[in-house]
Formats: sequence, structure tokens, C-alpha cells
Amino acid sequence: MPDQQPERDGPTYPAPIMALREELRRRQFWRAVLAETLGSLIFVSAVLGSSVPGPNGASPGPLYPALAGGMVAVSLGHCFGEMSGAQVNPAVTLAFLATRRLDLLRAVAYILAQCLGATLGTGILYLALPLKSSAECYVNKVSSEGNAGQALGMEALATFQLVFTIFSVEEQRRREGSEPGNLAIGFSLSAGILTAGLFSGGSMNPARSLGPAIITGIWEHHWVYWIGPVLGAILAGVSHEFFFVASASRQKLVA
Amino acid sequence: MPDQQPERDGPTYPAPIMALREELRRRQFWRAVLAETLGSLIFVSAVLGSSVPGPNGASPGPLYPALAGGMVAVSLGHCFGEMSGAQVNPAVTLAFLATRRLDLLRAVAYILAQCLGATLGTGILYLALPLKSSAECYVNKVSSEGNAGQALGMEALATFQLVFTIFSVEEQRRREGSEPGNLAIGFSLSAGILTAGLFSGGSMNPARSLGPAIITGIWEHHWVYWIGPVLGAILAGVSHEFFFVASASRQKLVA
Amino acid sequence: MPDQQPERDGPTYPAPIMALREELRRRQFWRAVLAETLGSLIFVSAVLGSSVPGPNGASPGPLYPALAGGMVAVSLGHCFGEMSGAQVNPAVTLAFLATRRLDLLRAVAYILAQCLGATLGTGILYLALPLKSSAECYVNKVSSEGNAGQALGMEALATFQLVFTIFSVEEQRRREGSEPGNLAIGFSLSAGILTAGLFSGGSMNPARSLGPAIITGIWEHHWVYWIGPVLGAILAGVSHEFFFVASASRQKLVA
Amino acid sequence: MPDQQPERDGPTYPAPIMALREELRRRQFWRAVLAETLGSLIFVSAVLGSSVPGPNGASPGPLYPALAGGMVAVSLGHCFGEMSGAQVNPAVTLAFLATRRLDLLRAVAYILAQCLGATLGTGILYLALPLKSSAECYVNKVSSEGNAGQALGMEALATFQLVFTIFSVEEQRRREGSEPGNLAIGFSLSAGILTAGLFSGGSMNPARSLGPAIITGIWEHHWVYWIGPVLGAILAGVSHEFFFVASASRQKLVA
Repeated sequence: MPDQQPERDGPTYPAPIMALREELRRRQFWRAVLAETLGSLIFVSAVLGSSVPGPNGASPGPLYPALAGGMVAVSLGHCFGEMSGAQVNPAVTLAFLATRRLDLLRAVAYILAQCLGATLGTGILYLALPLKSSAECYVNKVSSEGNAGQALGMEALATFQLVFTIFSVEEQRRREGSEPGNLAIGFSLSAGILTAGLFSGGSMNPARSLGPAIITGIWEHHWVYWIGPVLGAILAGVSHEFFFVASASRQKLVA
Repeated sequence: MPDQQPERDGPTYPAPIMALREELRRRQFWRAVLAETLGSLIFVSAVLGSSVPGPNGASPGPLYPALAGGMVAVSLGHCFGEMSGAQVNPAVTLAFLATRRLDLLRAVAYILAQCLGATLGTGILYLALPLKSSAECYVNKVSSEGNAGQALGMEALATFQLVFTIFSVEEQRRREGSEPGNLAIGFSLSAGILTAGLFSGGSMNPARSLGPAIITGIWEHHWVYWIGPVLGAILAGVSHEFFFVASASRQKLVA
Repeated sequence: MPDQQPERDGPTYPAPIMALREELRRRQFWRAVLAETLGSLIFVSAVLGSSVPGPNGASPGPLYPALAGGMVAVSLGHCFGEMSGAQVNPAVTLAFLATRRLDLLRAVAYILAQCLGATLGTGILYLALPLKSSAECYVNKVSSEGNAGQALGMEALATFQLVFTIFSVEEQRRREGSEPGNLAIGFSLSAGILTAGLFSGGSMNPARSLGPAIITGIWEHHWVYWIGPVLGAILAGVSHEFFFVASASRQKLVA
Repeated sequence: MPDQQPERDGPTYPAPIMALREELRRRQFWRAVLAETLGSLIFVSAVLGSSVPGPNGASPGPLYPALAGGMVAVSLGHCFGEMSGAQVNPAVTLAFLATRRLDLLRAVAYILAQCLGATLGTGILYLALPLKSSAECYVNKVSSEGNAGQALGMEALATFQLVFTIFSVEEQRRREGSEPGNLAIGFSLSAGILTAGLFSGGSMNPARSLGPAIITGIWEHHWVYWIGPVLGAILAGVSHEFFFVASASRQKLVA
């Protein structure tokens, strides 16, 4: 859910109030960027921390990061939802850009903030790791028997359903739904990780994949985690816009 | 939850508005059919993706698909709830038909859309699977020690509680409840998969069973996954209608 | 949450309306009893079905029944909450009786209905079980190394927090809270099963323990599952009433 | 969420009403202290009970206590939220003290109550334990391969996101949000336990760590579970206050 952008052609105010508004816009902008940084740091640290294998060395599978990621997404929606939309995901930000719900400057700033936050989060989790050799568990990997195309398809599919949910919830919020939208987004994220987990690690978030790649230096198949989620997200945003919203607003006019 | 059907005997409008309304109805119809197709594709891909066994070859049991299925049902309720009811399940559609909340044309179109979407979803998940031999994990199977009758009974029971919940939530929505109904439906679906999982795989959804049967060619006991859920769903819909709603509306009249 | 009881000293109506009201009351009563029976059947079948060990013979531990039980409790709140309160638990019913929120006749009828529903549910699950020898997994058992007193304490503690939550949610409903109360009750039930699971099986519900005892004939330590939950439930109900509600209503008067 | 504190400079009332108000304040105070004691007892018993290893001796990992703790936090929000805020955590209380949302007397009383409740809860769970030698599973421990600094960092990070969520939910409650805040807090707690579980046990709550230390006499690294959570909590409270709330209220003034 993108933040409300200040209207461009509002009423004209006297100079001091104009300056105050300008100042405020700048503050809001930086607050939103800070929110994306901090939110991405928290999100990535939750997903990575819950991916650490137990004492017996066995990987916990996608269940732990799915639950931790989905749950922390719900709480981040409460923490930063009103500042920046708590997007914490470059793919989501690009989907908002593609559907003109965010301007280019803001989208670029958010994506840089998300990548910074994710890298900081990974760094903290790397420092906290007792055995540095197990840092590999932080990296999204293509299933050992599968190929990159299969992983890319699963990432695109999982991100599609996530971003479609985000757009639907945002639309319902405008019309004051009573269903808890943050919860639907969190559940959608958890379901996506469970769905794609054994194929591609279930990233759906380029920043979440970038952080571990930077910290561990493992860049294998890294492009999959940018192309797949971005493809799915933009497809979801555009299809939500053109197929569904258009006819929905028409429907309203007549009914 | 069925979509609102256009009233049959509304006020008479001048010809151009009539034509517009007619056009709109057609658009809404196709939008709903598209929503059922896409929704079934997403639902089935979440359930199948989370059923894939881990690297050690062990089946994850019904927990993963139960959580993924229930969670994605919540988010689908947000995505497609207002277009088609996000039924994504022929048994649910037939229960709505049996209680006259959907007309025959719409019910048939929805069921075809659901089966198409489920087959497409299975196809994508089949292509994404590294080892095609493990596609068997997608198929709902009767417990190896049990018989078809036992599986059918469990499918009917699990679907009964799911569809009873759907009907109850729908009724509460008409009276503006503050409890999140999508969540109750998702939880009911998860609980049903956990309940019937080790007996019959916990399908409760003929389309979810049809897709893998078509793609893998494994049709053993397939009839169980049509008869069981449809039986449970229609029983739930009819019993909800006749036993409970009737006296509830009477109660209102007096109280 | 108990159903609204018809007021005793309402306005006087002409004879035919009186008869209609009387008739209605009788209908509501039987509808509530039917709701408790059906609800208990569904609840018990969800808890038992999810307790069945997997193909490798290992018990799934308390996680599966905890999730299935909690989730189905949320959906039962939607299905039967307005008819009978969806209590499906003799301990809860006795707590309502002890705090005078239910009259004796209704409480007795509910408890009989709950025991009947639980036994029917266990019977269905027994018939569905491929290997009858594994029916033991349905029975609540005291931890093999522990004693009955320890199990009784844990049952009382877990039921205390469950019933305290139910009473609190019910009180909030009167004042139109926006938090989803059904969810809190379901979570409380899940948490209770996870808490007491390895000590006593986490029943918190005499009917849930009675059904399997009748069907399998295993009555060892059965009294624990009546005394423990009823003790915890009545303690919760009474302490909620006297300690907290009294001062809360006073607070309102002044503030 | 802190309870509403009686306003200091309210209207002047005649003497008897003043006395009644004074009496009431005292009652509310003790009710809140009792709520913190009972709430901490229930919270700690849920977390400890779900940490007990299964019959095969294997630790269940952080999943069980994460789910039980988060779920019981949701239901405690319903039970005690209006009495004391259901803080049940000295770190949260100190964050409220640091941001002047609680006065010193109340904060000290709450913390003592929380430590008392946690110790009582641990005592009950210790008595219920069949093999006293396994009481070690109740104690939060630094990962065997890691050091205290790593555990402290993870506790601070996990508590930071928990307390930031609590402050955000509290702020939204003042403005009547429709999203269920208790759920966000519970999810945040679950996510925190999953995140930090394998590093430090995922306490985020000094009282939850104190109880088992007192009962079992294992005090190794105990200071980590006071410094880490309190650091994270105060940092979260202060940063929420100064960075975000300040500009948010300004924003309102102009927009």
C-alpha cells in the first residue's frame, strides 16, 4: 500500500504555510525512506534468523521462515504501514511504480533503502551466527535437482499472488472493509514461501536475496531472484489494474 | 459467498441504460469466471507446491498444505471475494446451486473455470518439479491401509464443516459482523486438511483432485474426491438453510 | 458465550403472540441443543483426525491437534455462536452455570448434547481408521512418566486460561470491541493444547475425552479429564466474575 | 498498551465523591497488579509447557513455544488488556516508563508482579514435570557454539521489533483502527521467538527468563536476558516516540 502522495494542484496558500508544507513533505519523504530501511532490516532478520538449522544440523524446511516472515509482515504493516506502506520489497515497489501509484524518485529511494536495510539485517544476523560456515542457510538457492527456469517460474507465481493480494487489500482499504487486510498480506506471504520454498527458497523479494548474496559472496542464480519476483509483481499489479479495477468502477457507476 | 445476482424485476430504464446494464452484466459474468479460473490456479499451486517432499525425501505430512491452503484461501477472499465469491471449489459451487444462491448457468461456468484453473495450476507445478517421478505427491490418495469408503466419509465430514462455515460467514456478512469471516473460512479449510489428511489427503475440493489426476494420469479412487466433497457440501448447505436459517429469521420477526 | 436467555418479566402480550413466543423458545432451545451436538461432533473429529500418527508410525505430537482444534473452534464460533455459544465443552458450560449465565436445564441439556456429539464424532473417526489398533492415539493419556495429579494440574491450568479468555471475550462483545474475539478463543485453545499436550494430552474438554474412552474402552485416569478441566473452568469463571467484573462496572459508573 | 492513568488536574468534586474516586484508583491499581501477576503466570506456563521435549527426547525447537507464546499473548490481550495492558514483560514496562506512559510506582509494581507471576508459573510447571532432570528445557540458554554478545544482540533485535509493534498498535488504537492489534502483537512475539530461538532461546522477556533461573538454579548468562530485551525495548520505545510520532502529529496539523 503506497503512502498518500501530496496532491499536485491543491489550493494556493500564503508563503509561510507553503514553506511549512514543503518542509513537511521532505520530512515525510525521509521518514518513509527510514521506515523502509528499518522495516527491511527487521523483515530480513526474521526470515534469516528462522532459517538457521537446529542443533542437529537439519534444515527446518520452509515452515519456520514462512511463519516468521508472514507474521512479521503483519506487525510491520502496523509499524510502518502509514509511513511508507511497509513495502520492504523492491518487487512490490516496482509494481506500484508500474501502476503509477508511486513516482520514480520515491520508488528509487525506497528500493535503495530496502536493499540497504536487507544488507544491514543480513550483516547483523551474520555477526550473530556462531559458525560462519552455516551462513549458506541464509542464501536463496535453486533446488539442487532443478534448473533456474523452474525456480524463476515459481518465484514469479508466488510473487504474483502476493502482490495481487496487496493491491486488493489496498483497494478494499479505500472502501473501509472490516476484514483485516494486514493479515491477508501476511498469510499470502507465508503461503508463498511454503509454495515455492522447496523449488527456489521462496524469496519473492529481491532485497531479501541481495543481502545474503552481498554478505556471503554467493551470487549463483542471483538474477533469478530479481527477474522472477519483479515479473510476477508487475504482472499482478497491471492485471489487477486493467482487468479488475476498470470494470469494478464502471459497475459502481450504474449500480 | 456467491456474488450478488442482478435482480430480475428491477425498475424499467430507458433503452440505452438497459443496454449498458446488459453489457455490464456480461462483463461481470466473465470477470467472475476469470476470477474463479485464476483463483483456482493460485489455490491449487499453493496446495501442491507445499506438498512437495523435502530434500531427504520424507513427506512433510498434511501440515504444510493445510497452512498454505488455508492462508491462500484468506488472501483469495480478499482478491476475488467481491467478483465471484472466491469459491475455487466445485463442491462449494454445487452447494450454492443446491440452495438456489447461484443459477445453473453460472454454476456450470464456475465449475468449468475451477477445473481449468486447477489443471493449469497443476501443469505449472509439474513443469517446475525437478524430478517428474515425485509428481505423485500432488495426487490425493486414499490411505494405503484404508479403503475408499473410509476416505469418502472423511472427505464428506471435512467438507461439511468447511461449507457450513462458508454459509454461516456469508449470512453474518449480510448483518455486518465485526469478526473476520475470511479468516474463519481459511481456518476451517486448514482444519479440514489436518483432520482428513492422513485418511484421504484432505482434498475437500474436486478441482484440486482433478488437476493432478489429469496431469499425472493417476485416476485411482478419483471418484471419492467428487462424491465425498459434493455430498458433504450439499448436506452442509441444505442443513444450514432448512434447520437454522428458517428459525433464525422467525426469531427476528418476534424479538 | 452463552445465548441470550429469554427475559422472564417482559411485557405482557395477547394470548396468540404468547403462544408463538413459547413455541419459539422451544425451537430455539432445541436448535441450541442440536448446535451443541453437531458442534461437538465436528470439534472432536477435527482434534482426533489430526492426532492420527503418520505413515512412519511416529506421533505428530500436540502441534497438529492444537492447530486443528483452535482453527475449528474459530469456525464453530461463526457457525453456532449465535445459537448456543458454540461451547462444545462441558467444562465451559459448567462455568457458565456456576456464574448463573445459563440455567440448570439448559446446562444439563448442553452437556448431554456435547457428550453425545463427541461420542458420535469419535465413532465416525473410529470407523474411518484403517488400523483399529491405532485407536489408542485418540485417547487422552497421562504422560507415561508422570502421575495423575500432575496431569490434573496441567488440565486445570490450561482450562483456566481458556475459560478466562472466553469470559473476557464475551464481556467485550457486549461493549462492541473491534478485536476478533473468536480468534482469541481459538488461539487460547491452541495454546492450551500446546502447553499441556506432553503432560496430559491437552484435553481441557471432558466430552473430548469421554468419546474416545467410550469407543475404545480405555478408561485409565479418565476422571482426571473431568475434574481438571471443570476445576479450572469454574475457577476461571468465578474469578473473572468476582475479582474483575465487579470493579470494572464500578469504574464505569464514576468515569 | 498502558492503562489510562487518572488525570491529575480534573474537575473538583465534593468530598464523598473524591473519596470514592481515591478508593477506585486504589482498586484499579491492585487489580492491574493482580492482572500482571496472573497474566505472567499464564504466559510463562504456556511458553514453558510447550518447550518440554517429546517422548523421544528430542527438543521441539522454537516452533512450539513461538506459537503457544504468540497465541496466549493474543488471548491475554483480551483478558487483561483493559486492566494493565497485559504487558507481562518487564522490558515492555520499562519501555513505557522510559517514554513516560507509566509512572515509576506503577512500573516497579508491575515488574515485581511480573517476576512473581513468572516464578509461580515456572514453579507449577516444575511440579508438573515427570522427570525433574529435564527442567533444563525451561531455561533460556545461549547457543552452545555462540557467545553471550551474539545472544544479547539477537534478544535486543527481537525485542526491538516486538516493542515497536506494541507502541504502533497502541497509537493506532487511539485513532480507532479496524485492524486487530492484539493479533499483530501476538504475531510479532511469535516471529521474535522464531527469529532468535536458535541463537538465544528467544526470550525477549526478563521475567520469563528469571522464573526458570530461580526454580532450577541455572544462572549462566542470565544477565543477557535482562540487558538484551531492556535495551531493545527502550530503544524501540524511544525511537518510536521521537522519530515517528513527532512528525506524525505535525503532519496531521497541516493535512
